[in-house]
Amino acid sequence: MARPTIADIAERVGVSKGAVSFALNGRPGVAEATRARILQVAKEMNWRPHSAARALGGARAEAVGLVIARPASTLGVEPFFAQLLSGLQAGLSRQAVAMHLMIVEDVEAETEVYRDWASAHRVDGFIVVDLKVRDPRIEVLEELGVPTVVLGGPGRHGSLSSVWADDREAMLSVADYLAALGHRRLAHVAGLPEFRHTQRRMRALRDSSRRLGLAETVSLTTDFSDAEGAAATRALLSRARRPTAIVYDSDVMALAGLGVAGEMGVRVPDELSIVAFDDSVLTRIAHPAITALSRDTFAYGRRLAEVMLAVIEEPGRRRDVKTATPRLVVRESTAPPGAWQAD
Amino acid sequence: MARPTIADIAERVGVSKGAVSFALNGRPGVAEATRARILQVAKEMNWRPHSAARALGGARAEAVGLVIARPASTLGVEPFFAQLLSGLQAGLSRQAVAMHLMIVEDVEAETEVYRDWASAHRVDGFIVVDLKVRDPRIEVLEELGVPTVVLGGPGRHGSLSSVWADDREAMLSVADYLAALGHRRLAHVAGLPEFRHTQRRMRALRDSSRRLGLAETVSLTTDFSDAEGAAATRALLSRARRPTAIVYDSDVMALAGLGVAGEMGVRVPDELSIVAFDDSVLTRIAHPAITALSRDTFAYGRRLAEVMLAVIEEPGRRRDVKTATPRLVVRESTAPPGAWQAD
Repeated sequence: MARPTIADIAERVGVSKGAVSFALNGRPGVAEATRARILQVAKEMNWRPHSAARALGGARAEAVGLVIARPASTLGVEPFFAQLLSGLQAGLSRQAVAMHLMIVEDVEAETEVYRDWASAHRVDGFIVVDLKVRDPRIEVLEELGVPTVVLGGPGRHGSLSSVWADDREAMLSVADYLAALGHRRLAHVAGLPEFRHTQRRMRALRDSSRRLGLAETVSLTTDFSDAEGAAATRALLSRARRPTAIVYDSDVMALAGLGVAGEMGVRVPDELSIVAFDDSVLTRIAHPAITALSRDTFAYGRRLAEVMLAVIEEPGRRRDVKTATPRLVVRESTAPPGAWQAD
Repeated sequence: MARPTIADIAERVGVSKGAVSFALNGRPGVAEATRARILQVAKEMNWRPHSAARALGGARAEAVGLVIARPASTLGVEPFFAQLLSGLQAGLSRQAVAMHLMIVEDVEAETEVYRDWASAHRVDGFIVVDLKVRDPRIEVLEELGVPTVVLGGPGRHGSLSSVWADDREAMLSVADYLAALGHRRLAHVAGLPEFRHTQRRMRALRDSSRRLGLAETVSLTTDFSDAEGAAATRALLSRARRPTAIVYDSDVMALAGLGVAGEMGVRVPDELSIVAFDDSVLTRIAHPAITALSRDTFAYGRRLAEVMLAVIEEPGRRRDVKTATPRLVVRESTAPPGAWQAD
């Protein structure tokens, strides 16, 4: 028989690989009786730890760092981010790795924290979110040499590993659908202009406009808050020639936009179609329920954790992982435009 | 002039105390120009660090531990918890203290993590959530001697410090209001029975029932999930004598209950009043909007961080901090019962 793996032991005992890993490494997270049984089976199977991993073991911080340069008050509001962090924590916790978290004011402070944690060996790796168009963090992290995974792409993350979903493809699918319904005047209430994914979405919409021969498309950038989402919607609906469909870069902003339509007497979907780029309980319980690009955000976070742990195990190998493109879930907020709205 | 404090320097420079603390401790979180200015003013004012704090400084992990024995998938779903964590992180981050986070399967694993992190000096303190009726964690944490703050109370947290809101008072206010509207048959869809605050709410409702001479009150416990919230609602609305008002221990469950009422053709609020114990965007955008006990959960989390940092600074002094009782925000889901529903 080949050298037994943790998976072999897990199968024999009937527990998860994580539980076996905890038990063999003498770490918390598994009940004593289970630990004893796992050690017994490992002994029977003549299991030996991987020597390199073992040698490194002592030096590990058993934690992954996440530094966020966003207002803390927005973190609990956006379901996407809350779900992503939950999935990330779940993925790390399965391997008994903690998340070391700090919120800072700006990117400058963020890079200082990276330097601080790297020199104090507080973490084994970094996860970087909110990839920017020209991102000063990439060079700093390359220089620090700590295993790092960037959430975002494709490209623009230097030699660092990354996990990403195709925002361009997702936006093209929305534009195609709205054009097929007969919409000619599309608008886009976008997020922060310095974010790379915001730019990718804006460019995809412009390209769609040309390709589909649409009358007009416009993207207004915001700070992702419901207040700016509402303000952008008011500006769009105050134009002489209103858009007949608006795509929002988040569920929170789509909900704010729906509120503004109500306040201005613009009926959804009869006079205005609304699409949200993120899906959550907010879009499902809205009235009317909002058509949205949907994905399993919890699974996305867990995938991010898996890639981070793999990069820590094998820092020399760069990973570039594309995850599933969000797919459109059509609800009550989209319909063909009224005949009187045609160009 | 008396020995200058960090507050004095902050006032002179026109920045936050946190920024001064960062700068004086040579920690990240403040821009270089600001740091230089702060150091200059501190020198002019002849500021000297507190020697004891300085001596401890080197040994600090600059992190607070939070171990959560809940399914990770529920963390991103419940707005209360997401908001609480945001406030907590915001409060800690202002002092450049990180949050060290792990999710585990059960309380046994949780206490093992406490032992592990304490012995490895990974954190300077612990925050404990989900206080249970007989909570085995209290004794373990007392024994470890690491500064700890329990979220919950009053009482049952041994010699450890605590931060709490008065769940009993909050439930009494809900029962008073529903009785004043004329409701005689109240029901309560509660959370996990092993949680101390669940028991306090159930007892408060029973006491109200006696005091107000209500016909009948019943509490059904659940795991806080929308699925069990829906099932409990179905059971209550299938009774020969239905309750005319239901109080839910969370916004997520109240929303699930509202859905079940719709599915069973029970009109809200005409035939059934609904109250949620937590308030969030979910209760506000529901249709009808849901009456809820409301508080500033972000501020609650920040208060928790402040108490934690104070306990780390001065571990000998036990704190027992009562925060504001949630107050009732009345929306469209509550009304007097129909005349035909009277006992």
